Amino acid sequence: MKFEIIDRDAAGRICKLQTKHGTVTTPNLMPVINPNKILISPKEMKNLFGTEIVITNSYIIHKHKELKKKALKEGIHKLIDFNGPVMTDSGTFQSYVYNDVEIDSIDIVKFQRDIGSDIGTILDVFGTPDQTKNESEKGITETIKRAKMSVPEKGEMLLACTIQGSIYQDLRTKCAKELSKINADFYPLGGVVPLMENQRYSDLVKCIISSKRGLDPSKPVHLFGAGHPLIFPLAVALGCDFFDSSAYAKYANDGRIIFPWGTEKLDDLNELPCCCPICTKNNVSELKKMKKSELILQLAKHNLYVSFTELKKIRTAIVEGHLWELVERRASSNPYLLYALKELKKNKNKIWLEKFEPISKKKALFYTGNHTIHRPIVYRMHKRLLKNYNFLFDTTIVLPEGNKPYSTYYANLIKKIRKKRNVNIIVHSHLGPVPIELDEMYPFAQSVFPQAIDKETSNVLKKIFNEFFKGEKIILWKEGKSHLPTTGIRKNRLDLDLNRISAVSDIQFGKDASKTLFNASIRIVKSKKTGKIRNIYREGNHILSMRASDGMFTLKIEGAKLLHNFFKYPKLRVVVKEDAVPFIKERKSVFAKFVTDCDPALIPLDECLIVDKKDTLLAVGRCLLNKNEMISFNYGVAAKTREINN
Amino acid sequence: MKFEIIDRDAAGRICKLQTKHGTVTTPNLMPVINPNKILISPKEMKNLFGTEIVITNSYIIHKHKELKKKALKEGIHKLIDFNGPVMTDSGTFQSYVYNDVEIDSIDIVKFQRDIGSDIGTILDVFGTPDQTKNESEKGITETIKRAKMSVPEKGEMLLACTIQGSIYQDLRTKCAKELSKINADFYPLGGVVPLMENQRYSDLVKCIISSKRGLDPSKPVHLFGAGHPLIFPLAVALGCDFFDSSAYAKYANDGRIIFPWGTEKLDDLNELPCCCPICTKNNVSELKKMKKSELILQLAKHNLYVSFTELKKIRTAIVEGHLWELVERRASSNPYLLYALKELKKNKNKIWLEKFEPISKKKALFYTGNHTIHRPIVYRMHKRLLKNYNFLFDTTIVLPEGNKPYSTYYANLIKKIRKKRNVNIIVHSHLGPVPIELDEMYPFAQSVFPQAIDKETSNVLKKIFNEFFKGEKIILWKEGKSHLPTTGIRKNRLDLDLNRISAVSDIQFGKDASKTLFNASIRIVKSKKTGKIRNIYREGNHILSMRASDGMFTLKIEGAKLLHNFFKYPKLRVVVKEDAVPFIKERKSVFAKFVTDCDPALIPLDECLIVDKKDTLLAVGRCLLNKNEMISFNYGVAAKTREINN
Repeated sequence: MKFEIIDRDAAGRICKLQTKHGTVTTPNLMPVINPNKILISPKEMKNLFGTEIVITNSYIIHKHKELKKKALKEGIHKLIDFNGPVMTDSGTFQSYVYNDVEIDSIDIVKFQRDIGSDIGTILDVFGTPDQTKNESEKGITETIKRAKMSVPEKGEMLLACTIQGSIYQDLRTKCAKELSKINADFYPLGGVVPLMENQRYSDLVKCIISSKRGLDPSKPVHLFGAGHPLIFPLAVALGCDFFDSSAYAKYANDGRIIFPWGTEKLDDLNELPCCCPICTKNNVSELKKMKKSELILQLAKHNLYVSFTELKKIRTAIVEGHLWELVERRASSNPYLLYALKELKKNKNKIWLEKFEPISKKKALFYTGNHTIHRPIVYRMHKRLLKNYNFLFDTTIVLPEGNKPYSTYYANLIKKIRKKRNVNIIVHSHLGPVPIELDEMYPFAQSVFPQAIDKETSNVLKKIFNEFFKGEKIILWKEGKSHLPTTGIRKNRLDLDLNRISAVSDIQFGKDASKTLFNASIRIVKSKKTGKIRNIYREGNHILSMRASDGMFTLKIEGAKLLHNFFKYPKLRVVVKEDAVPFIKERKSVFAKFVTDCDPALIPLDECLIVDKKDTLLAVGRCLLNKNEMISFNYGVAAKTREINN
Repeated sequence: MKFEIIDRDAAGRICKLQTKHGTVTTPNLMPVINPNKILISPKEMKNLFGTEIVITNSYIIHKHKELKKKALKEGIHKLIDFNGPVMTDSGTFQSYVYNDVEIDSIDIVKFQRDIGSDIGTILDVFGTPDQTKNESEKGITETIKRAKMSVPEKGEMLLACTIQGSIYQDLRTKCAKELSKINADFYPLGGVVPLMENQRYSDLVKCIISSKRGLDPSKPVHLFGAGHPLIFPLAVALGCDFFDSSAYAKYANDGRIIFPWGTEKLDDLNELPCCCPICTKNNVSELKKMKKSELILQLAKHNLYVSFTELKKIRTAIVEGHLWELVERRASSNPYLLYALKELKKNKNKIWLEKFEPISKKKALFYTGNHTIHRPIVYRMHKRLLKNYNFLFDTTIVLPEGNKPYSTYYANLIKKIRKKRNVNIIVHSHLGPVPIELDEMYPFAQSVFPQAIDKETSNVLKKIFNEFFKGEKIILWKEGKSHLPTTGIRKNRLDLDLNRISAVSDIQFGKDASKTLFNASIRIVKSKKTGKIRNIYREGNHILSMRASDGMFTLKIEGAKLLHNFFKYPKLRVVVKEDAVPFIKERKSVFAKFVTDCDPALIPLDECLIVDKKDTLLAVGRCLLNKNEMISFNYGVAAKTREINN
């Protein structure tokens, strides 16, 4: 199976999954095709909505004499008339709903293989939310057993092994870990439909995160039975790649219309609040006049237009680096979904999420309310400030929030202050304390906050403020009222540029990185147009460039050498196999399959040192994956090589 | 001019405006038609987007020799080939942008009249946000002068008199008041484009509210130059009826795509996150391959699809009673818009907004974040609780938030407590204190909150809690830990039903209403199915029915007589002209034009006593308008008559 990451944001990702019948871009939605009664044909779905993959039920086909015969003879693709990828389900859900599934768990896998399913599913044991831990444990033991027995039968089919464990997070993680050990290809999260039916989104979040924690990150994850777009953004942000929808048809059947913000009954509407082709061609009274079968068809089409569009919005948000913004925005549609976001405020979840969170993003960070301050990128910045920032002087002047960048906004004041005395200058911003020399770094400069923030954010800021300034002498500056201290050492004039590059490198590369980078003669070249720092030379060697977009450094090989010398293994390293060395030397990308080890602290879009197994510096580059991903993935780029060490 | 309210929510409204060329439903959008270069014809707009009215610029037509000649000869409708309503602008904006408008302010009004414009605009003086108060005052003086001089020239044309006053709220109100005195028909709010361009939405809110405060409520209000759907929901919630968009074309020209949440550049997109017919027919690369003129046309169409759909969403939200939910949801897309909502938390604005806020709504109140608690309907409930609620007993047991309705959720506990001692039982809910006997009243039962709420909401709740319980002896009940007081009077067994109907009538009709309604033998009839109170008889007369949907009373004529006797004029009254009396006696609706006076405390959907000028009770009914509206409107229903006094 070929599955690779193309782009990413939050713990979400855009991937390519290759199947026998073509490549699918994730996150994506698989409409459920009822083999007994095809409402909209997969071909038409492809045409209308850009559907790339569908799912159908092998158990229903198996139970139906004619369908079974035809499927075995002509294959599943002919049966439903679709030449794209087809996933099949096994009857687990039917056994949960009707409690009458009479088929052998291995026979159904063989059957799926024999009818040519691209992705076939094991017959797992559905874990309901109300079962006891003991019951759930029994269920996952049986599921794991069946999965192991199914693997040898999968043939060329990709095998989907469903993770169960009810609402017990440790069981979810355990089941995911066990199923990751076997030769499976695809991981549905099962047993979640009752949670979604009852809007228990908080429990859903727990199930997703605990499953993902145990899972091989290089495998596609499918939130089984999730067909309402309301939860797509959050589920994707937590790392789900696939959804399947029978909702489009079921809801249509009940006269219910799906919207990104929830569901409306056709009977309650005077107008259609949507611009899809169905809703622009028809008005409410025209729909109501239709005969039932036609109405169902039209509503089903609308439901699919809306669902597929939500996925486009999500993929667009990933590309822009705005997935958290979309998640938070959607949460304001539904109080239960809003409540579910509280899970993400827990420290253990922030730690987990931070590993996936890119170091910077294409678009500015937007404040949407009291969840913004808990985003992993903010958590990371606070952590790094506490750990890596050096207070240079004995006194710190704390300035209130202002326009960005702060060094421009406060330029006159800073000049005035520093003429008299050398002090640290730090802005008490809506994102936390921002040392003035870090004011161009993402997201400090690249963030949009309202003038006033909510109480919860204030409280978080107060906490980090106290922690950050613990033991420091600070003056909360009020223009016209505050006075500079009269004591304290008056140092030589401060080199502001050196101050800036030192602070940025310490935050970006690690504590004291500046001590090795800038311990010789330094020349700083600035942009003539913007006056901003561009390139840094050390004893004539170009060691760093500062990116205008996020105020962070691009590492040159001469800078990489210094950091390689200074930081002990494995810090900043990506280690490649011997086979890959010649390719790296040709400046080819580092493919994940060649990575043998990696700094566990490296995160997506971090600068990295590419080394061989003896820790010889081969090149400098930029990560696309985190450690766990680099080790797990067999396909795709782990890091892009920028410059080689000749 | 015929303009009437059909439905409403927040301070927003769905109205019908009748013009010579047909009726328009508001809120609505007028696409700007450039007479020099028609990108999409009004006819096609009607076809594609359901466009009902367009706006074009009479100044541009007047300046252009050929266009002027044709317009005067054939009329504006022929010129732009549209037989629906056409509004014309006067050149004010051109004078602001290019500062070179050379036309007499009365001539341009005559010209608009002569070319047959349905709604023509005076040549007002554009007030920029940066002008001094003095400059602004001069500007509005001149605007008012011109408006007065324009009125006699309007002929059959509806005259739009633009309200200016820069960012000075008192000037906005003054200008609105002065312009409301003259015989004008339509009120644009001018000078707001620079505010929107700079995302100064907070100032925009101030401008809208201060203008609306001074305006005749029976006239359509147009937010001049507002064409981005991002601000439509908030502007409608504050009482704007019309928008106009040149944005659709301008943005398209720059390769920018309008979405409800903001604007995206086509160049930044990999996919089109939209399901409109343009975005489902084309993908990004197809669009990029188009020649420029074709691309502009396609983007402009998309922009209009999205803009008109947002209006459908808004009108749907009004019908459902979910306009505040939509406003708050949209605000999470943009930090400046979010900040603007802070204006609505000010007491003076809550007081103003409450006058428009219906007494109950079709759908449950949804929590979206820290703005929800500041909604006018919550503010009203707190106010009424403080003013009208009677503590029956000396001790109050305060129960924590639970499932709704609370009397069911806490049934056993309440029974246990009340067996021992008569106490008040009040739930400390996410909406404020809810006396158990009010637990079925909107929005106490009909609200969806997450299990935990934000800090700001908690603080608001704390404040109202302290105010409500001031001087009361309370026990914060903790199950298993709290004990009943051993002192205090043990009364006779409490009649829970009587308790409920008393409390509801005091909150709904006014302090002590229960004392007159229930001071005789009372029989309560309950639904056999739900066990809920349905009908109330007093000495055999049916005086009240309780609505299952919102837990409030429908007033019968026998109940109305009691309240009419008990409450002094004008409380609960709607006074009609003598001419209307015969119609009321036939149970016809009370039309606004027949209303001469009214209780200023009546709000939309309140029960009301319909009386003649001598305060004789004619009938009982339900208001659709508030006092100010009843007095101002010449068209539409002010109250629906339910039962007459024979």
